[in-house]
Amino acid sequence: MKAVVYKEPHTVEVEEVPDPRIESPTDVIIRVTSTAICGSDLHMYEGRTAAEPGTVFGHENMGVIEEIGSGVVSLRKGDRVSVPFNVACGFCKNCLAQRTGFCLTVNPGFAGGAFGYVQMGPYTGGQAEYLRVPFADFNCLPLPPGTEHENDFAMLSDIFPTGYHAAAMADVGTGDTVTVMGAGPVGLMAAYSSLLRGAAKVFVVDRVPNRLRLAEQIGAIPINYAEADPVMQILDANGGEGTDKGIDAVGYQATVPEGEEQPAVVLDTLVEIVRPTGMLGVVGLYVTHDPGAPTEEASRGELLFKIGRFFEKGLRMGTGQANVKSYNRQLRDMIIAGRAKPSFVVSKEVPLEAAPEAYAKFDAREEGYSKVVLKPAAA
Amino acid sequence: MKAVVYKEPHTVEVEEVPDPRIESPTDVIIRVTSTAICGSDLHMYEGRTAAEPGTVFGHENMGVIEEIGSGVVSLRKGDRVSVPFNVACGFCKNCLAQRTGFCLTVNPGFAGGAFGYVQMGPYTGGQAEYLRVPFADFNCLPLPPGTEHENDFAMLSDIFPTGYHAAAMADVGTGDTVTVMGAGPVGLMAAYSSLLRGAAKVFVVDRVPNRLRLAEQIGAIPINYAEADPVMQILDANGGEGTDKGIDAVGYQATVPEGEEQPAVVLDTLVEIVRPTGMLGVVGLYVTHDPGAPTEEASRGELLFKIGRFFEKGLRMGTGQANVKSYNRQLRDMIIAGRAKPSFVVSKEVPLEAAPEAYAKFDAREEGYSKVVLKPAAA
Amino acid sequence: MKAVVYKEPHTVEVEEVPDPRIESPTDVIIRVTSTAICGSDLHMYEGRTAAEPGTVFGHENMGVIEEIGSGVVSLRKGDRVSVPFNVACGFCKNCLAQRTGFCLTVNPGFAGGAFGYVQMGPYTGGQAEYLRVPFADFNCLPLPPGTEHENDFAMLSDIFPTGYHAAAMADVGTGDTVTVMGAGPVGLMAAYSSLLRGAAKVFVVDRVPNRLRLAEQIGAIPINYAEADPVMQILDANGGEGTDKGIDAVGYQATVPEGEEQPAVVLDTLVEIVRPTGMLGVVGLYVTHDPGAPTEEASRGELLFKIGRFFEKGLRMGTGQANVKSYNRQLRDMIIAGRAKPSFVVSKEVPLEAAPEAYAKFDAREEGYSKVVLKPAAA
Amino acid sequence: MKAVVYKEPHTVEVEEVPDPRIESPTDVIIRVTSTAICGSDLHMYEGRTAAEPGTVFGHENMGVIEEIGSGVVSLRKGDRVSVPFNVACGFCKNCLAQRTGFCLTVNPGFAGGAFGYVQMGPYTGGQAEYLRVPFADFNCLPLPPGTEHENDFAMLSDIFPTGYHAAAMADVGTGDTVTVMGAGPVGLMAAYSSLLRGAAKVFVVDRVPNRLRLAEQIGAIPINYAEADPVMQILDANGGEGTDKGIDAVGYQATVPEGEEQPAVVLDTLVEIVRPTGMLGVVGLYVTHDPGAPTEEASRGELLFKIGRFFEKGLRMGTGQANVKSYNRQLRDMIIAGRAKPSFVVSKEVPLEAAPEAYAKFDAREEGYSKVVLKPAAA
Repeated sequence: MKAVVYKEPHTVEVEEVPDPRIESPTDVIIRVTSTAICGSDLHMYEGRTAAEPGTVFGHENMGVIEEIGSGVVSLRKGDRVSVPFNVACGFCKNCLAQRTGFCLTVNPGFAGGAFGYVQMGPYTGGQAEYLRVPFADFNCLPLPPGTEHENDFAMLSDIFPTGYHAAAMADVGTGDTVTVMGAGPVGLMAAYSSLLRGAAKVFVVDRVPNRLRLAEQIGAIPINYAEADPVMQILDANGGEGTDKGIDAVGYQATVPEGEEQPAVVLDTLVEIVRPTGMLGVVGLYVTHDPGAPTEEASRGELLFKIGRFFEKGLRMGTGQANVKSYNRQLRDMIIAGRAKPSFVVSKEVPLEAAPEAYAKFDAREEGYSKVVLKPAAA
Repeated sequence: MKAVVYKEPHTVEVEEVPDPRIESPTDVIIRVTSTAICGSDLHMYEGRTAAEPGTVFGHENMGVIEEIGSGVVSLRKGDRVSVPFNVACGFCKNCLAQRTGFCLTVNPGFAGGAFGYVQMGPYTGGQAEYLRVPFADFNCLPLPPGTEHENDFAMLSDIFPTGYHAAAMADVGTGDTVTVMGAGPVGLMAAYSSLLRGAAKVFVVDRVPNRLRLAEQIGAIPINYAEADPVMQILDANGGEGTDKGIDAVGYQATVPEGEEQPAVVLDTLVEIVRPTGMLGVVGLYVTHDPGAPTEEASRGELLFKIGRFFEKGLRMGTGQANVKSYNRQLRDMIIAGRAKPSFVVSKEVPLEAAPEAYAKFDAREEGYSKVVLKPAAA
Repeated sequence: MKAVVYKEPHTVEVEEVPDPRIESPTDVIIRVTSTAICGSDLHMYEGRTAAEPGTVFGHENMGVIEEIGSGVVSLRKGDRVSVPFNVACGFCKNCLAQRTGFCLTVNPGFAGGAFGYVQMGPYTGGQAEYLRVPFADFNCLPLPPGTEHENDFAMLSDIFPTGYHAAAMADVGTGDTVTVMGAGPVGLMAAYSSLLRGAAKVFVVDRVPNRLRLAEQIGAIPINYAEADPVMQILDANGGEGTDKGIDAVGYQATVPEGEEQPAVVLDTLVEIVRPTGMLGVVGLYVTHDPGAPTEEASRGELLFKIGRFFEKGLRMGTGQANVKSYNRQLRDMIIAGRAKPSFVVSKEVPLEAAPEAYAKFDAREEGYSKVVLKPAAA
Repeated sequence: MKAVVYKEPHTVEVEEVPDPRIESPTDVIIRVTSTAICGSDLHMYEGRTAAEPGTVFGHENMGVIEEIGSGVVSLRKGDRVSVPFNVACGFCKNCLAQRTGFCLTVNPGFAGGAFGYVQMGPYTGGQAEYLRVPFADFNCLPLPPGTEHENDFAMLSDIFPTGYHAAAMADVGTGDTVTVMGAGPVGLMAAYSSLLRGAAKVFVVDRVPNRLRLAEQIGAIPINYAEADPVMQILDANGGEGTDKGIDAVGYQATVPEGEEQPAVVLDTLVEIVRPTGMLGVVGLYVTHDPGAPTEEASRGELLFKIGRFFEKGLRMGTGQANVKSYNRQLRDMIIAGRAKPSFVVSKEVPLEAAPEAYAKFDAREEGYSKVVLKPAAA
């Protein structure tokens, strides 16, 4: 089959690779119909990880079931399913506690596995024609047959649940005010999810006008931090009060308006803008090793953090990658009912074969490539 | 009346000060029967804060009502009451959300007020014969008449709820394993509260043998970090697995075994020992200004924190001073029912007049002075 | 001042009564600007309660502060406020647990007090020019000055929080399907609140076409139970599955399509339509004494209830009048932010003097009188 | 193999039946080491259900793994495991929501399956030498090797989690007062669990002195309802106040002191004794069909219930069989840590062959047969 294969920093190619096959009775094979490129794929693409050449990328996958293991009971050939980016077993201590992002079974020695991602276990990615899904009864989310809502459903394997996870960790509820740092696809999904959960006002902080426009379109209040101190802008727009909740959808590659990387600036801004007793949901990535970090401490994942102020305000913080299974069923039902339409973030769809160009343009932040969905030919 | 008055660093005296009087219809005056010295009083005592000479100390207060404002409806002269260390109004946004430690009314310009504490509002301390309690219907917790359980109830105004707050923020529940850093009075109360909430195993980390003995007596597992790496000791004692939850009852004045202050060492140890998906409750104090800090950043309340690892493990963290009103009623009922006896931490009771000596010996970490309850003569 | 006074069954008059005055330092007097007639006022109006002639009705009140007790600290003359229908102290065990509908202070011998309602304590109603509000710091919710959103804010003292309470007790969240029994003002508010909380689909069951049209306008799915079995209709519209949650906004005066009263029919319908593991929020009134009940047991508040099926399905149920203070601040903020507009249920506003006619027409279910807001002249 | 086979009302025999075998790749076969007789087995034993002759009883099972399907990944031959009474798939909507007692996969047409129980699916019981466990990775809870705590662990498959479920549904927490109706094995486990969760006082109501003695031994307060009105007794012992929470561990076969069956008496007693805003956890069985019921309505599972008072007090109620998987891991860890010892309810252990006698004596309420654990010879 054809698949997007990592060759070397800044190069992927679409190549023939062996078809996946049923390896365990609980596996299924799906024919991939949509598979999106994620911002986190760029970490590997840019060579800032230990990803080996030959890796097949792709963790935002959906498709139609082609082949079924003998131990699978709830799925049939032809079923259309969404596949969470996390691979999870469904029965370990963490999966039972609905923390499927930290499964203890699928990636021995580490809590959590994923498709097509370095150090996340032996699971080939789905930017390909076919994909093996382990523990299929647990990992596959059934979708209505046909092709309706395809790009909405494509958002269910990662960024919609990830944005929602941020809002859930920040405990966003009716009447809350929320600051979302970052208006990339995940930040937009976090803002969108905050509104779905009943937030009164959601401020979205970024400096890219296109992104801020999208934020405004979904009912959030755009704050351009390149124009003025975002803390002051939000205080002004919020009656002099900080927001109840804060979401970090940026992570360690945060930059100050001047462009310099300053890994803790987003967290520290949230500590300032969130009011006492508030809560932070952090889904922007913080890493334990970053060769490109501005300081030695930062390269080890240690950042200078305003913990004194955090404590004084009695703040709380939840972090980590999304447990997709905790949210994807509910969000699917919102899409089917016409109450959510997350495909508003999709900027382009292209054939699988166009992946190399799409990666290059996405990496160059070219307009129109902020969220690309690949469509394999077999689909 | 007589009161404990701060004179200069390392000096308090028992002096005559004006009696408190009803200032608002919602005030009461209590005759103080027990008032404990808190570790946080030492910050002022040692001159490491902006506390002015003349300040009357004391925020761990209980007593009997002597005088009642005309707007008070639930209290009568002669009622025995516990008074939370936080002064709170009961009707602001934060009080309504049960975050009485962050009351927006009592200390204008800041979230939260307290008795007898620098920068926590104009509330004279209770290490004295009498104490004015504002918003008395809200702030006074009724106790059974008499003198039974006096020292147990004396723990209700601060350290028992503070320890419980740590366990609550860490969401300690049935079957959990917990690491508590610090076996001072608050750490012991956190361990004790964790057991009350149903923890299976509670590890308490300290290096003072007396404290560790107390931890063992209440059913916790003592870990002496001066003997070996506490992370390794706990992993060994916990089947190779980290604990589900972690509690920081030390704060920024943390020291490494060699004795050097290293403000983030306790937090970073918890990041190592708590297992993925775990939760931290932080009640050990982190400050925004510390003139005595080892680094310039630390003096501004910024610490190098292992945020990369924290995120990778999907950890969550709650911080800040306890909202005493959220817990003191329930804990009182546990004392009355004979199911909790927090006075096990009380090492000594002395007359109010002995406060200067008690402060000096507590500050010198002299044995027998780890938790002193003062007994004013009027009682 | 002028007030709506109950004279005898089916008769109220607007009469001169004594002006209220400050009775306690924690009171305020408000000039009433809007006061709505509630369905529960009809119980008294129809003579089906022990309400005495002379009672001043009115528990859905808002206005502007005219006079302030000496112990009130957060309010100023001229402040515009919403007043919850429950009178609550703010410091009893139930108020502290945010169950202000069951205050133990304000109505000795009973849990809960209210303005202008039989057996709910000595609090004169607000269908009048002025109203005394006890424990004013606690009970008054500040509103923006002016007259904007007046009828939206008028819904904050009862029916919007009551509808929200139903959704909260049923734990309605993102992606849920919900059945709301009853499309009167409270049922509509429950449906509206369910959507605000993120429900995917809300079915609203009634047989009055006007009400069902309103349900449809806010995005719910109308089900006319006079046309066919509502259980079947909902199963058909929900893919053959029961709904996740159910709300009873009807209560004991439920009728079958033939018109006969059958007090448990709404509850039993919910037991059928809510799927196993589901949850019910019951705000429709069930009483302990009903002289007009169809059976002797029902007259004592005992109904034949399908507890066997309830248990088999593992259902849960929350009941009781709303704790308005738990929700009114958040809902106010939704109104201010333009994210909620509950005044869609208001069918008419009339001067206070028109109350007798409004009561008569409301009681006769005349069109246009389903939700009337009275506007006292002093305002 | 040998198994306990139902022959006719009041008769079981130990007979040879075919050995179970792996039927699906996700199955395991265990050699049963302990299997307890449950009060709910008596419903079938007495012929009050549709159970067919030939049925093998037994849903409280534990043992050692003998054979493993090819799709099982977390278990090895020789592993000692506890098996929940509910059979569950682990991936349906209800299992994902941790409601494994209402699995939608294992018993088509019904929510929930169980071993050896009429209408709960095709799963042979474990009162036998061997047992097939479907979805074994999900359903088997690993235990430490050996034989330590055998009877404690034997309580993990049903009654300890069921008692805990009652306390969880009633949201029992620190400082709560609780009334438990019924001091049979499940009632005792509910009282025990309430204390583990931090209750201040637990009242246990029954009239069998032996049972009440056991309740007292674990720290609960025994209330003999045959001696005086239990509501009055509890009010007297609780300072005149009702309890915060209530647990029904009796169900529809409730009797009044005179001995007559009155199916709703336990529920109605809880409605009286639980204070306003309280919560009920109902694990005592209520059925949809009861041929032996005292009234026609009761035979259809409809009971006269004091819904008026329930509503007036703002009570809440959770019901249904336990979702064992939600609790058994945590309770296992409490046993291993020495913090829980549920085997205190075990009155006798006998060989599997003695099952007929044990059933007869248990059915006759003979002393010493209140909780019997069967020990198959193969173990």
